[in-house]
Amino acid sequence: MFKKEEIEDYFRLAIKLAEKGRGYTLSNPLVGCVIVKDKKIIATGYHQKYGGDHAEVVAIKKVKDKNLLKNSILFVTLEPCCHYGKTPPCTDIIIENKFKKVYVGIYDPNPLVYKKGVATLRKKGIEVEVGFLEKEIKRQNEVYFKYIKEKRPFVIIKAATTLDGKIATLDYKSKWITNEQLRKEGNKLRCYCDAILCGINTIIKDDPYLTCRVLKNKKIKKIIIDPNLKIDKKAKVFKENSVIIFYHKKDNKKIKILKDMGVELIRLDLKDNFFDWKEILKELYKRNIASLLIEGGARTISNALKAKIVDKIYLFYAPKIMGKGLSFSEDLSYNLKNLIKLKEFKIHQFKEGFILEGYLKK
Amino acid sequence: MFKKEEIEDYFRLAIKLAEKGRGYTLSNPLVGCVIVKDKKIIATGYHQKYGGDHAEVVAIKKVKDKNLLKNSILFVTLEPCCHYGKTPPCTDIIIENKFKKVYVGIYDPNPLVYKKGVATLRKKGIEVEVGFLEKEIKRQNEVYFKYIKEKRPFVIIKAATTLDGKIATLDYKSKWITNEQLRKEGNKLRCYCDAILCGINTIIKDDPYLTCRVLKNKKIKKIIIDPNLKIDKKAKVFKENSVIIFYHKKDNKKIKILKDMGVELIRLDLKDNFFDWKEILKELYKRNIASLLIEGGARTISNALKAKIVDKIYLFYAPKIMGKGLSFSEDLSYNLKNLIKLKEFKIHQFKEGFILEGYLKK
Repeated sequence: MFKKEEIEDYFRLAIKLAEKGRGYTLSNPLVGCVIVKDKKIIATGYHQKYGGDHAEVVAIKKVKDKNLLKNSILFVTLEPCCHYGKTPPCTDIIIENKFKKVYVGIYDPNPLVYKKGVATLRKKGIEVEVGFLEKEIKRQNEVYFKYIKEKRPFVIIKAATTLDGKIATLDYKSKWITNEQLRKEGNKLRCYCDAILCGINTIIKDDPYLTCRVLKNKKIKKIIIDPNLKIDKKAKVFKENSVIIFYHKKDNKKIKILKDMGVELIRLDLKDNFFDWKEILKELYKRNIASLLIEGGARTISNALKAKIVDKIYLFYAPKIMGKGLSFSEDLSYNLKNLIKLKEFKIHQFKEGFILEGYLKK
Repeated sequence: MFKKEEIEDYFRLAIKLAEKGRGYTLSNPLVGCVIVKDKKIIATGYHQKYGGDHAEVVAIKKVKDKNLLKNSILFVTLEPCCHYGKTPPCTDIIIENKFKKVYVGIYDPNPLVYKKGVATLRKKGIEVEVGFLEKEIKRQNEVYFKYIKEKRPFVIIKAATTLDGKIATLDYKSKWITNEQLRKEGNKLRCYCDAILCGINTIIKDDPYLTCRVLKNKKIKKIIIDPNLKIDKKAKVFKENSVIIFYHKKDNKKIKILKDMGVELIRLDLKDNFFDWKEILKELYKRNIASLLIEGGARTISNALKAKIVDKIYLFYAPKIMGKGLSFSEDLSYNLKNLIKLKEFKIHQFKEGFILEGYLKK
């Protein structure tokens, strides 16, 4: 009916569409789909935002004459859901519209859906084939897989560094090691995440806004690690979007001020002068945060690396050498045999620097 | 007669041929040439090694029937010489063989030749055009330009580093931060240089051979900075090729042992516990060394960077993070405004790491 290359071409398009949702879907996956009738594309769709219509529904709604859908073919990157979540099951609407066949990229790892969506369709006589561009679709949904399977956010570290690994001078100055072009790329990365996390030292020294400038209407949670509630209520970080502070010290006066400002406060126990990352991640998981970007500073980044909770790292290199300074690996110490290793790394070169992207080897 | 693209194609071939001499020409330039008759290439040549025939002579010698050369066209990347050096003037042999026209890539910066070679040919009625692929040819001969114009070697730093700029652990262990693939690339870079320089600490800690394995019959000078003559006469560095030691302490016994081993010793004054790089470079210039590769360790590299005598840097990055350790920028200290900056940098990605290549901004 379709050649393998044709099928893959439709999936490539569906993946491209799915990508448009990046940054907006929170704990939902990125999904794209294409509806084909008589070898012509009659509609496309993607999951646009958390709580909104699923990709299949978006595409189906675009077809005004529902008769057209009868005997048409659906290509969808992720297995259609068969349960009531924020929206009704996609399998119902596919069955109702009498699709002839559904090509599914990968099974949904969510136990509520896994293989059940496909079974539901088959039971109603709809042909289903599964397993196309699996590697690409899984990679595209690495955040979702982590969130669903390990019940914690996918953790990314980002650092803007010199060639010798320095993210700030010894007196904590870091504005700006990289240039405008790389900062824009860094902001894009931030926009693609659900939450951004910083240690209190970075908030005090840099007083950053921590906002997204590249994606429209993007809301990001700002997470601050501030055991002693040292944060100033006038800090710029409070200007936009919501702030969550992890703290320990019971400073009731400060707690009241912050709560009145609408800040969410989460109290955790201290261990070795830091919180247990697993507890932080658990709290964020509960709040639907599927991807967490740790942006700084040296201590917080080192600490996360040491705790082995980091999934991916982005190093934004400026073509500069600093010498003495604060390194993103400041507090780490390994011998040659057990250095932290990256796998599947890629380099993106720009005129004024380059970005290294890689996954942490476990 | 020829279209611009045809001319450039011949020059591209000549540049490619010239490249084959890299590593063998010492203070001589890399030169390639192509002889064309009736739009057909009848011979090619390149300068193969210091003291050997120049590219033009190599090509001309290949043509057995010298009548063929009459009215032929010569494409040569560098202006033909017109003086007696190690070999007779190339202009003589071009004139003698009645070439019709000579296309010259760039003028030879050597004052003995500069524009004189071209003038000699024109005086004898040979047409000459100058200025083709100048940027590429100058880049190919960056070592020669530095050597001729500034009367010192072109200085390259190479360091094998982690992503956080560490070249060894705090206890000086560095074998091997990068993998076999990158080490081979590193050896290639070494082979392309005339001399390799290390501090005595690297010799003591690593006991390296400092040999070239990638280029056949390549002789490299090994330069060691050893103010107090701490070197062990059994050090592996003495196994192959010749060694030059810069020293200060008048240890007559050690001096005799080393001299008997055939080591060249050069005594310099100490300033701030180190030698003056300008004096080191002057001595190397006198010895025909046009390109110097500084390979380590942390102190020597930092010191060279601080002295601003470095022209180019190669950082061989392993996708690893070390934390505490020795950085190649160990002894440097700058504020954000005067960091060392690289320009025209390039990244070469490999499976197990990447190489950054760039020039130091002055």
